[in-house]
Amino acid sequence: MISSAPALITLDWGTTSLRAYLHAADGTVLDSHAAVQGIMSLDGSSFAEVLTANAGAWAHTHGKLPVLLSGMIGSRQGWVEARYVALPAGLPDLAAGLTPVPDAPPAFGPVSIVPGLLRDEDAAPDVIRGEEVEVFGALHHLGVHDGLFVLPGTHSKWVRVEAGRIVAFSTYMTGDVFAALRGHTILGRMMQADAAPSPAGFRRGVEAARGLKGPGALMARLFSARTLPLTGRMAETDSADYLSGLLIGAELNDATHGHEAFTLVANPGLTDRYATAAEILGLPHHRAPAQCGSTGQFAVARAAGLI
Amino acid sequence: MISSAPALITLDWGTTSLRAYLHAADGTVLDSHAAVQGIMSLDGSSFAEVLTANAGAWAHTHGKLPVLLSGMIGSRQGWVEARYVALPAGLPDLAAGLTPVPDAPPAFGPVSIVPGLLRDEDAAPDVIRGEEVEVFGALHHLGVHDGLFVLPGTHSKWVRVEAGRIVAFSTYMTGDVFAALRGHTILGRMMQADAAPSPAGFRRGVEAARGLKGPGALMARLFSARTLPLTGRMAETDSADYLSGLLIGAELNDATHGHEAFTLVANPGLTDRYATAAEILGLPHHRAPAQCGSTGQFAVARAAGLI
Repeated sequence: MISSAPALITLDWGTTSLRAYLHAADGTVLDSHAAVQGIMSLDGSSFAEVLTANAGAWAHTHGKLPVLLSGMIGSRQGWVEARYVALPAGLPDLAAGLTPVPDAPPAFGPVSIVPGLLRDEDAAPDVIRGEEVEVFGALHHLGVHDGLFVLPGTHSKWVRVEAGRIVAFSTYMTGDVFAALRGHTILGRMMQADAAPSPAGFRRGVEAARGLKGPGALMARLFSARTLPLTGRMAETDSADYLSGLLIGAELNDATHGHEAFTLVANPGLTDRYATAAEILGLPHHRAPAQCGSTGQFAVARAAGLI
Repeated sequence: MISSAPALITLDWGTTSLRAYLHAADGTVLDSHAAVQGIMSLDGSSFAEVLTANAGAWAHTHGKLPVLLSGMIGSRQGWVEARYVALPAGLPDLAAGLTPVPDAPPAFGPVSIVPGLLRDEDAAPDVIRGEEVEVFGALHHLGVHDGLFVLPGTHSKWVRVEAGRIVAFSTYMTGDVFAALRGHTILGRMMQADAAPSPAGFRRGVEAARGLKGPGALMARLFSARTLPLTGRMAETDSADYLSGLLIGAELNDATHGHEAFTLVANPGLTDRYATAAEILGLPHHRAPAQCGSTGQFAVARAAGLI
């Protein structure tokens, strides 16, 4: 019988925040909390100190539990640079590629970092760190072994799974591009930071994306976020969501080839936005439950024999 | 016989700089100079004061000459908002649409502003102010009445001319997008502001643009400006020019439909970059001579009966 006693600590440790979990051996999440101490926002603390601050109490109470970290903590700017695993990659490949943290605080059991994935392609290689773990969590929750998954974010990750292994993924810089265009091009001049959300503007942007023919066409169509208000065809307060819809619509059309079904994982706010865009474009989609991150981390830890 | 006496002052007055010309009645440019007093960089001076500072000496010497202004000086942020003329538009249409400046300094003759052009389209309207005048100058220099012209810039303008009239144009935000991506997304982290130009990186970017299939594909391929150096496939010092090549290549492919011949007008530095990209893509192109701006202004002034 699998115990429900505490058996594992995991941290999903990203650029600007982290989320820590205490797992039982049967997979139950016993406790969790979030902090803003991402790898780029440590405020002078060491990685070891932040780990202790966020999970030390669990170790103090329950003894030397193994710790598994995923996300940007394994990047060059993180604690220890974790390797990249090549595609295709299943849970056993992630589990076999863990990188140990040599200078972990002694209050914890072994601390290790989940590898990232590398799409090792000459023309356009791609990398992912952390989201792949969430995809394995989604597979577990949904009871499936195949599918197309998207994790919206500053950099959206589209991940394709076949027979339980990740066979391809692709990074779309949509959120990063949107923020740069709004903040640092002429388009932002008409956009108010405090404008109310504009579903009508968003819809119009998504629909505009549908008609675009090629990559250069996007660079021209961007200007319509300015010229539509300029010519009285759209309210200025619609223009930020119009731009967002245009970019997300272009992303969805490309990643799904205009028709493929997909599953939305994580990031509730952005997921709503992507779901709305998918509805406008008539793209079949559904949502994975929350907690795919901790579920995926638990699955990796078990595959690695940590519990 | 047409006189070579001073007969006209023109200013190409943009957002960040201006260029002033003294023309003879026969079209000869007798004198010219540039200043950094664009409409967004007046440093507290009024438009009238800047006009006097840059052309007052000519008026003082030669009397009350008519003055013709083109460019962003006719925008909402300019001296007087000049109207937009609808397509198709020839020189007579521009000449018939001049907007007088009511509060011009008395040392000058009548001061007027060339209208902009409006592509009055519901889905994606577009506007242009100033570049259309340069296109008419290019037509004059080249002795042609048809063609596809590009004026590279922060916002590149592609202008199609048939039978001496502008029938279509399109704005590509390429330069603006490049600066925002380099300065304000993760891509800039690998780019050094003082890196030497990288022709190899630029070529690789242009070639990458050729393979892109749709608008969303660009949002994904942008990330290769980071992952190629990250995986050791490209020097970090190549990444800025790679990004530039990717964006300009996408623009060229879209605007020419991948094959159409075009003429480069103005902006020598950027024109070199566009010409190189066109060579890599095998796109037939040539360059208009310098001074298309002043030639076009003179042509508008003559069509308007100012001289």
